[in-house]
This record gives sequence, structure tokens and C-alpha cells, in this order.
Amino acid sequence: MDASESASLTSLTAPPDPIGIVAGWGSFPLEVARDLRDTGHRVIIAALRDHADPALQQYASDMQWFGVLKLGRQIRYFQRHGVRSVILAGKVFKHRILYHGMGWMGHMPDWTCVQAFREHFISRTKDGRDDSLLTAIVAAFENKNMRVVPITQCGPRLLAETGCLTHRRPSSAQMRDIAFGWQIARQMGRLDIGQSITVKDQMVLGVEAIEGTDALIDRTGQLCPRGRFTLVKVAKPQQDMRFDVPTIGVRTVEQMRRAGGTVIAIEAGRTIFVEREETLRLAQRAGIAIVALRQAGMHLLCDRWSLPLAGPQDHAAESTSTASHPAPPIAPSADAASGQPLRDRHQRAA
Amino acid sequence: MDASESASLTSLTAPPDPIGIVAGWGSFPLEVARDLRDTGHRVIIAALRDHADPALQQYASDMQWFGVLKLGRQIRYFQRHGVRSVILAGKVFKHRILYHGMGWMGHMPDWTCVQAFREHFISRTKDGRDDSLLTAIVAAFENKNMRVVPITQCGPRLLAETGCLTHRRPSSAQMRDIAFGWQIARQMGRLDIGQSITVKDQMVLGVEAIEGTDALIDRTGQLCPRGRFTLVKVAKPQQDMRFDVPTIGVRTVEQMRRAGGTVIAIEAGRTIFVEREETLRLAQRAGIAIVALRQAGMHLLCDRWSLPLAGPQDHAAESTSTASHPAPPIAPSADAASGQPLRDRHQRAA
Repeated sequence: MDASESASLTSLTAPPDPIGIVAGWGSFPLEVARDLRDTGHRVIIAALRDHADPALQQYASDMQWFGVLKLGRQIRYFQRHGVRSVILAGKVFKHRILYHGMGWMGHMPDWTCVQAFREHFISRTKDGRDDSLLTAIVAAFENKNMRVVPITQCGPRLLAETGCLTHRRPSSAQMRDIAFGWQIARQMGRLDIGQSITVKDQMVLGVEAIEGTDALIDRTGQLCPRGRFTLVKVAKPQQDMRFDVPTIGVRTVEQMRRAGGTVIAIEAGRTIFVEREETLRLAQRAGIAIVALRQAGMHLLCDRWSLPLAGPQDHAAESTSTASHPAPPIAPSADAASGQPLRDRHQRAA
Repeated sequence: MDASESASLTSLTAPPDPIGIVAGWGSFPLEVARDLRDTGHRVIIAALRDHADPALQQYASDMQWFGVLKLGRQIRYFQRHGVRSVILAGKVFKHRILYHGMGWMGHMPDWTCVQAFREHFISRTKDGRDDSLLTAIVAAFENKNMRVVPITQCGPRLLAETGCLTHRRPSSAQMRDIAFGWQIARQMGRLDIGQSITVKDQMVLGVEAIEGTDALIDRTGQLCPRGRFTLVKVAKPQQDMRFDVPTIGVRTVEQMRRAGGTVIAIEAGRTIFVEREETLRLAQRAGIAIVALRQAGMHLLCDRWSLPLAGPQDHAAESTSTASHPAPPIAPSADAASGQPLRDRHQRAA
């Protein structure tokens, strides 16, 4: 954590400073907003049309709806409310904006937005990867003296902790699939393509790009009607905790249940676990195991089964993660049904 | 090319020696069989049930149907016909075998097959990636003194040559997408996940794993209904030309047309181009550009647009390719409609 981040942390802990949320799709913005309100902050929400949940209203001191590409209007709205710290929460579906209907021109970007993305979509000197686009958004806020705050600083309770979070634990073969898939998912992340892959029997069944994790799970269910596959969802090695942090929740478990998947492996400390209680309850009922592991422990898991490490590796400290102490991987249980949850505290109210 | 490969080349050029083909899905086995028959070989075909095309019969001196997992029977069949050189041609859908119905046990592998894959599916000390599985098959043939021959030695005419193969040429923006996508597709290949990706505006739309290229194109069409995307299909850096060589043909172009894709980029010298004449005719009619490039020329293309190279690169010689001389990349035409085909000889009868 550098000095500037500490500064924003200080400003976050001082109650009178309002926090802005740019709210995209899913329940993550809801949890962030509730969390902030519960800790005494005034929450100013720029809700993205066709993406955000209207239920956000209940946690907001003020809320207004914006087109996704009205970046200048969002910034001016926050300025009017004295917002200095902004959180980007929830997925934005870029293919819906770019390739449906009239494309991004159909969404009528405002001038600030055109300027921010000029190099991506007009002069084409920059590519269209998530990191590239989001960096442009962060720069637009910074130009107006607003700081985009990493999620680790405002909702650490939302991040998954290391351990097996369900009663059901992965079998030995499934742990091997996790270790195998983890290496590959991380490579995908390094290339900034997607965050998730599905694996069975040390075989990659599917890889996520812009279609999203739900579509990946659905497709895997069709390719593998006998189910019992594993979803591995990890942060990018270069993950910037200010945006695009991997998230799981009720929807992930429901999709997995429908598709016949049995294990969800996520990266501890760098994955947002929304609707935790309800998600775990659903997983228990569906017999799905959820485990949160750390990159730092992964080579132990690979050593255990003499798994080759796929591609170039980095075991370097996860510089963008706030919780950087390595934790040992979970030992698999021979009998998948017998295990007890390692950490009951995961099942407390979020 | 090492000494043993030269030896097999010699044996291939001696007409009386019969060639065995293990024929999987698609029209590639048909072309190989016709090619071999036309050059005076006796062709002995082990046709894989639920995969191979019955039309193979017309080119075969002898043909018999086998379950995919009857490896021992296939070997004994070839032995009875005096086959010393075997070609593996055409895709085998491993998910159909492994995950549908009763799985691979339902296919009743014979003893040779069980032995060959023991480490993959019983002791689980090896993974289920294509290279890993195919190496086991090659070893089973070699145990019986049969050589698995790289496709470059029996059907070099089937490999795509460098150049723009259609009248329609990619626009400048599309060439940039090719260069961008190429780097990423190559990384996927390195990890032995899949061979194809779809790209638009320097954005990865989809990545292929076990679902196959057709399903990838189809999905991309849904994600991007406005179409005009590029398919990049490259060989693996570690491509073994004995198996799993990337292939395009009529089906690829038809899928692209339906999905609204406009450019197909393949790797020259390492991609099999089946039904060439008919494929090019279809592509012309659909306004789809087909270009074949070489890895060796790719950095020039990246330099041209100051594209970052994604991930670790190798510009090393393509050791498994038989045609290793580098060729310059194609210059894009500003007006996509004006270009003439670079090499008319591509349009001769295959």
C-alpha cells in the first residue's frame, strides 16, 4: 500500500466524507453500498442504466441514473455532492455496449467519455482489454481530483478468506483439478482475457472471455452432461483491486447446480464473495464445495501430485492484495462427505 | 527433420508400402486418403465409429470400422495388412467419449487402450490435454513397430501457403486485430488449451477449449450480432505435425458467414486447408478474407502498429514445421475491396 492509498484510507475512515459508487451489474454494488452506509458513510450512487439494481436506492443518500458512457455527467454529479473517493462496483458488459444495436455511438457518449476512450476507439492506438479501458476511466476521475479506491479498503469483509467454506470438501481428484486449472486460469488472467475456466480430469473444458462466467458454466454443462466439473476463478496476477475484482455469489452457485458442477475454487483475499450466507446455504444444499486458496500455497499443491506448472509462473508476492501472508492449501479429504468446515466464522452474517 | 523422419519419408515414397489412416471427423481424412491413393499408395483405413465419413471407402484398399477406444484392434488390423506407417487424421471429440452416456468405460476400451491411457485415467499421474493423450497413442503404435507419420510428409499440398488467399483483403484495422489476436492464440496453444480465438477491435471475444472452433464462432456471433469479427486459428508453438494440426475448410467459412465474421487468419505451413477450391469460392461469395501468415513475420506486423506483444514470446524457428523460411506479412489494403489475390496458384484445383 503506497502513501496515496493510505491517505484515501484515512479519508474513508472519516465519516463526513461522502463516497461515490459507480454501480454496475449484480449484487456486489448493493453489498458495498450497505456496508458503507452501515459504517456511517454518506453514499452517493451513480447507477448505470441497464445494469444497476434499483434496490440500491435504500442505501443511498443520493442516487441518479446514468447511461454507461455518460462519464462526464457522472463526474459532475459526484462533484456536486462533494465526493472525493469513488468505488467502481459491479460488472459492465462491454459487448452489450459495443456490439448490439448501434454500438457505443448509440449510447451517445458524452465529451469526457469520448476524450477518455479516444485512443481505444478512435485513434485505435490502445487495445480494448479490460485493464486498458478501466485505466482510462480511472484517469478521467483523477483528472477531476477524485480518487478511485480499491475495494480492499472499503469492504474487506466482502473478500473470501482462505479455507474450505462449505461442509462438503473437494475430493483428492478434485483438488488435483483445482491445482491444474489454477495455473491455466492465471495465465488467462495474465493476458487479461478472462478470470474463469472449467476443468475436469485435468482437462480444460472451457475458458471465459467476454461472455462472462455464467455463460461459461452453462456451456460446460452442455459439453459435459455428466457434470462433476470444477470452476476455477482467480484474480489476475496483475490484478488492480480498484476494478474488475472476481466475484462469486448466489448466481454462481445456482448456475453450477443447474450445470452439474460440484466444486468452485476461488482466490482468497482477492475474490469478492457476495451474499455469503445465502450462497453457502445454497452450496451446502446442492452438494457443491467452495474453497478459497492462495497463489502462494499453490506450488505445494502442485508438488503433492507432481503436477507440472503450466507456462511461466510467478510466485512473487501478490503486490496488489492487501492480505499478503501465505496460507497453506487445504488438505483434501478422501471422503468428500465427512469433512467439517474449517472456518465456521464464514457462516456468520455478512 | 531428424533421421527417423527421413526414413519414414523414404518408406512413403516407395509405392508398395501400404499406409494406414486412423480416420476421425471431418473431410481432412478424405483428402489425405485421396491424395495418397492418387500418388499410388495402398490405403488401409481404420474408420472411427461416430466420427469418420463413410465416403472414405472409395479411396481405401481396405477399410474397417472401429470404436474409438479399440486401439489394440486397430493396431492388429494394420499389422495384418502390413502397415508400417500410420497417419492420424481428423478430430476426435474427447468430450463425447468421456462425458456422455457411460463415459469412456461405456466405449469398452480394449486392453491396449487401457494400458496406453492407464496413467491418464486410472493412476491419474498424467493430465488429459491433447498432447498428453496423443503421445500415448503414438507410443502404442511405436510399441508395435509402426511409425506415426507427420502430415507434412504425406500431404504437403494440403497445407496453407503464405499470402492472402482471397480477393477480399483484411482492412488495416483487421490486420491489427490479427496481430493482436495472434499473440494470444499462440499463448493458448502453448498451454495446449485450444487453437482458435475470435477478436474485434483488439478485444478477445471468445477462446476455444474443447467445444471446437465451430461452437466458438457460433458463440461469438451471438455475443457480437453486428459481426465483422476475426477468427485467428494458429498452430501451437510446440505443434507436433503428427497430430491435432489446425484445419479450416468449407465448414469454417459457412460458420463464419452465418455468424457475421469477416476475416479468417491461419498459420501458413502449419494449417491444413481442406476443400480449398470450394472453401475459397464460398469465402469470395460471402466477402470473407482468408489470410495465411507466419509467426516469423508477426513481429513486423506488431511493430507496424506499435502493438505490445502479449505475454512471453518466442520468435524461435518453428522447429516442427517443414517449411521454415520466414515470409513477410501481407501489407493491408486501405480499401478492403480493391485488393487482388497475392497468389492465384492457391485457386488451382487442390
